[in-house]
Amino acid sequence: MSHPKSQDASFESISPAEFFYRNQQMAGFGNPTQAAYSTIRELVENSLDSCEDAQTQPMLEIDIQTINADTIMITVSDNGTGVPPEQVPSAFGRVLYGSKYSQQQKRGTFGLGVTMAILYGQITTDSPVVIHTQTHTSKGVLYKLLVDVENNRPLVESKEQLSRNAVGTTVTVQLRGDLKRSLDRIVEYIRLSTVSTPHAKFSLKIDNEVVLELGGWSKTLPAPIRATKPHPRSVDMELLRRLISRHSEKSLDSFLQSCFQKIGSRTSARFLRFMNLNPNRLMSEFTRDELSQLAQALRKYDGFERPDSRCLSTIGKDEFLTGVVSVFNAKLVEYASRGVTEWQGNPLALEAILAIGDEFPRSDVPTLYRFVNRVPLLYDSSEGVMTRVLKRINWTRYNAKSCEPVALFLHLCSTKIPFRAAGKQSLASIPEIEHETYHLFKELGRKLGRLNDRSRRSARQVKKMREFSRSFRQIARFSTTLAGQDEVPSTDELVKQLFEVSQDE
Amino acid sequence: MSHPKSQDASFESISPAEFFYRNQQMAGFGNPTQAAYSTIRELVENSLDSCEDAQTQPMLEIDIQTINADTIMITVSDNGTGVPPEQVPSAFGRVLYGSKYSQQQKRGTFGLGVTMAILYGQITTDSPVVIHTQTHTSKGVLYKLLVDVENNRPLVESKEQLSRNAVGTTVTVQLRGDLKRSLDRIVEYIRLSTVSTPHAKFSLKIDNEVVLELGGWSKTLPAPIRATKPHPRSVDMELLRRLISRHSEKSLDSFLQSCFQKIGSRTSARFLRFMNLNPNRLMSEFTRDELSQLAQALRKYDGFERPDSRCLSTIGKDEFLTGVVSVFNAKLVEYASRGVTEWQGNPLALEAILAIGDEFPRSDVPTLYRFVNRVPLLYDSSEGVMTRVLKRINWTRYNAKSCEPVALFLHLCSTKIPFRAAGKQSLASIPEIEHETYHLFKELGRKLGRLNDRSRRSARQVKKMREFSRSFRQIARFSTTLAGQDEVPSTDELVKQLFEVSQDE
Repeated sequence: MSHPKSQDASFESISPAEFFYRNQQMAGFGNPTQAAYSTIRELVENSLDSCEDAQTQPMLEIDIQTINADTIMITVSDNGTGVPPEQVPSAFGRVLYGSKYSQQQKRGTFGLGVTMAILYGQITTDSPVVIHTQTHTSKGVLYKLLVDVENNRPLVESKEQLSRNAVGTTVTVQLRGDLKRSLDRIVEYIRLSTVSTPHAKFSLKIDNEVVLELGGWSKTLPAPIRATKPHPRSVDMELLRRLISRHSEKSLDSFLQSCFQKIGSRTSARFLRFMNLNPNRLMSEFTRDELSQLAQALRKYDGFERPDSRCLSTIGKDEFLTGVVSVFNAKLVEYASRGVTEWQGNPLALEAILAIGDEFPRSDVPTLYRFVNRVPLLYDSSEGVMTRVLKRINWTRYNAKSCEPVALFLHLCSTKIPFRAAGKQSLASIPEIEHETYHLFKELGRKLGRLNDRSRRSARQVKKMREFSRSFRQIARFSTTLAGQDEVPSTDELVKQLFEVSQDE
Repeated sequence: MSHPKSQDASFESISPAEFFYRNQQMAGFGNPTQAAYSTIRELVENSLDSCEDAQTQPMLEIDIQTINADTIMITVSDNGTGVPPEQVPSAFGRVLYGSKYSQQQKRGTFGLGVTMAILYGQITTDSPVVIHTQTHTSKGVLYKLLVDVENNRPLVESKEQLSRNAVGTTVTVQLRGDLKRSLDRIVEYIRLSTVSTPHAKFSLKIDNEVVLELGGWSKTLPAPIRATKPHPRSVDMELLRRLISRHSEKSLDSFLQSCFQKIGSRTSARFLRFMNLNPNRLMSEFTRDELSQLAQALRKYDGFERPDSRCLSTIGKDEFLTGVVSVFNAKLVEYASRGVTEWQGNPLALEAILAIGDEFPRSDVPTLYRFVNRVPLLYDSSEGVMTRVLKRINWTRYNAKSCEPVALFLHLCSTKIPFRAAGKQSLASIPEIEHETYHLFKELGRKLGRLNDRSRRSARQVKKMREFSRSFRQIARFSTTLAGQDEVPSTDELVKQLFEVSQDE
């Protein structure tokens, strides 16, 4: 905008729904191909989060119907918690409706995605979204609703009681979408989702025909994710001001202990002594300058423990490996992870798998599969921090070229993800994320180097093993005859065991 | 978000200010380097738009003060229209406050940029923004204000009468910013701004020392930009619904003529006859299905004229060339443009300059300088549509490699810009934009090919010309002696003219 002129009465505040309606491409709805993909992605993310809340194995059904040449209908059905009837309109019909203060790893975090899909469907096909949901404590209900874009409010078209087979949610959106051009990405998205959420099962139906059934590689559900209070190092003036507005009657000491994680009575006392602050001072008495100093002190004091990692959900070594080898034809896999660290007070964890196999594209640099809070990222890789770090590393040092094609599966999780755009496809360059990614890649690079050495060594081993096998078989045959028996016992297992021991040395 | 659970009362709607506060990197404020750059960029864009409204030659003063190691204070002062006092709080203290329906080329369009800079400054240094402004009709006023993030409302800290030297606006923001790492980009931004707005003058002061004074290459002000009504082909259900809510008492015929550009009585009659619609039917009587059909018909009817181009402001051949040769040491320049077309009913114009000179980086592909609505784009080029089109073209065909380094200056203008993120650094792939860019690049490619041919040819020409010159000079000398004169007349000009004619053939 330019500065508004006095004679110009057309300046007004626009709603966030209006903003994203005007700038659909920012949220991943720039054209019919992207829109088909993004709609499925947003609905699937929501459903998986909901199943995690419900602590059940996710069973997701994705159903795409061709309505005509440029219109499709997408339905995603889950067995998650369901949505309480009174919450449905706001949860689906308002942009930027989300959780307020809790810090917790989630796939979707903006309160933007699903409503954006609904908005796009509404604009392009003039159809309401249909939501059929049922919870443990409420009966099934079927809503049809539209978004009032100018006011960012839901418009309920109809609401009726209709019981569902089971607890869960089904959302149907009709939209202008190009299925033909987006199908490959959609399938890729589902495949990779079963890598990062290996306990989830997906089925994809197109025009009433099942075209894909995938997942459920693992039977273990991940541990429940806890919501946590903010870490003191994540404080800025804005957060401090808000917390105080809710706790102005508290003393400084009690304020610190009750509003932040990792501050108990001893840490609080130590911090206040170090900063020479009076523990009994009431929060309401602080001047703005004093608050500004307090915020700075909280951010810079290095006596606080690292952020709580129980609000994160890494995939974990066994589960992640299971995911990769179930979906890809990998010959060799190696896992590595970085312990929980933080960026600006937000806990951060990275884990990755290096895989070798013919299925991956052959290239000088390993093929990178990116995951953030268990969500695969398929677009816009080149500007993101992960790809940039990948390219900084000299992979020829690790013989990446000489061996079979190499792939990297990188998973980053945090309570806050610095996406570069609302379409959630790549991450901004945060120094801590760059640093952690770099060292994780280097570690896997060294493993790759060793693997290459070993595979050269193992060629010798295989030859040796074959000779041993032949000798053992002859001895066995000879002994059998000697003992007057008919059946020659197999010696293969014995030889294998022998060599496994020698390889581990 | 996942579906909210009944027991979870922490779900609330968040304000757009809150959204961008949580996701600063999306708006270009991800780190102190980017933030310093983006603050200047947003303030400069606002100021230039304001000067265009005022129809004056822009004189912008940018002043950066180092406060301490990681804090800077940025002031941008302009001679634009100024802001009416009562508008100041909303214009600066609310996210997404902008012009409502008019279609017009503007540098800033989201009502987001400057407020985002203010918000970032407030969060990182707890300082209010200071705005000093004066219009032709109101006295000077000095505001200090903060943004109430939770409610997306301005908080006025103080307001006082203070007259200014002249009409215009000065905005001062204090922020955590890295000047050292951003300075190159800031200077580049200013240099390129004088290419795309060659009548504007800039001065940059750092810690009270003038480090740059640039611009004013051209004395011609661009023609004023008109705000226009929407084009019928830009209609979707959302727009139609809104227009009807304001004109429900109108007949279809009068509705079409008064709400859209390029529909007069004849076009309206032709359209209605073709669609077999009753011109006298009241808008309030239409059912939703009928409106949906009407929207489709408006979008698809090919009898409407192209969108009005008077709401666009191309730089123009002479001005653009002046800009490029004033800033860059270019040996040869060629201009090309595409006539006004449209994308989704929004007028669209492209123009570009091909420049050859030692100053540009040497590369297989020409160096691309991108401009959108006269704003230079410096970040995130690789994912954007302009760079992608550039790479699709086989530049070796045009001998781009064999000659001196080549650069392309591409300017796109439209009433709507499909930025990929709120940081406004690159464009989404819109087929029409892709198509126009491609053909413009090809045209310049062919010019480059001809230039290269010509420069090879001209080597021969130069040789020939030298021989001719020598002969002519001898003839002249001989004739002078013959005529008994002393002074031999110069023949250089004659030979030059001769060769100019033969080259134009």
